[in-house]
Amino acid sequence: MNSCADLIKEQVRNVPDWPEPGVMFRDITTILQRPDTFRKVINAFLERYGNQEIDVVACIEARGFILGAPLAHQLGVSMIPVRKEGKLPWRTVSRSYDLEYGSAVIEVHEDSFSEGQRVLVVDDLIATGGTMLAACQLVEELGATVVEAASIIDLPELGGSAKLRDNNYAVYTLCDFSDS
Amino acid sequence: MNSCADLIKEQVRNVPDWPEPGVMFRDITTILQRPDTFRKVINAFLERYGNQEIDVVACIEARGFILGAPLAHQLGVSMIPVRKEGKLPWRTVSRSYDLEYGSAVIEVHEDSFSEGQRVLVVDDLIATGGTMLAACQLVEELGATVVEAASIIDLPELGGSAKLRDNNYAVYTLCDFSDS
Repeated sequence: MNSCADLIKEQVRNVPDWPEPGVMFRDITTILQRPDTFRKVINAFLERYGNQEIDVVACIEARGFILGAPLAHQLGVSMIPVRKEGKLPWRTVSRSYDLEYGSAVIEVHEDSFSEGQRVLVVDDLIATGGTMLAACQLVEELGATVVEAASIIDLPELGGSAKLRDNNYAVYTLCDFSDS
Repeated sequence: MNSCADLIKEQVRNVPDWPEPGVMFRDITTILQRPDTFRKVINAFLERYGNQEIDVVACIEARGFILGAPLAHQLGVSMIPVRKEGKLPWRTVSRSYDLEYGSAVIEVHEDSFSEGQRVLVVDDLIATGGTMLAACQLVEELGATVVEAASIIDLPELGGSAKLRDNNYAVYTLCDFSDS
């Protein structure tokens, strides 16, 4: 796992002051461009979840799709998109969560999960954790169980992974970046 | 291939009057929920592209990520996200295209493709083809070659696949829906 974390740290693109001044954005497109690294990332998650009886991978729009779709495909389980408000065409359940200024809403189709299903919730990165927490709560609202919240990158200084754990969700990330 | 097309037609969710009155939306989330069908869909593309020396899969935000990420992973090639304006953090090249009312812009990072690379451009569905055409043009603007524009579903009556072919791009889709 360490070698995977080292690769990610080496190959991620650090973009200063994006999307706003003072933020160092961790851009994973440079990882996706390297097939060997992308494969190692997917394999790291497959090793962890291959024997955990996952039924569904819930994938948070949009970068979560990039990680979650190959995972669902390789695990041979359902891929459920968790989307921003107004993007899903059928009946949805939704949840709002606070942003630094204002709030946002995510949704899933109301037939996304069934009672007792074991769900892995994935996104590319955990920052403040608001979206991931809301996604986990939607899974449970529909009667399923969150096995773990999984991401490639954790930004622990922003407190998201701690907040998820405080809410009794297990968290797994391949590497973390300090905010420097 | 026919059986894959039949499965898609059987399992896609038809949502009338979405996103606006008179439109029949073809919702692929019901396909993603069925691991056997999702696997057959991915396999159909792998059979077609496994021997075509693809270097890059360019994936159009957001549903194109769901198809393109597993394809890039399985083909062992680069996955490049083609995103809506303002979503990519680094230096981009962009292209605008007409919508029914107004216009939209898509972008890629300027290091997404290199001279001579063979690129497969994917989205979930081809409707009017504006986004797909703009994505293909961005690939060529950066010096790479479009091998094919590929989607799960074609809506031929909306003219997108014809427009792409008129612009000398090869098009491949697994099944088509008439607008009924």
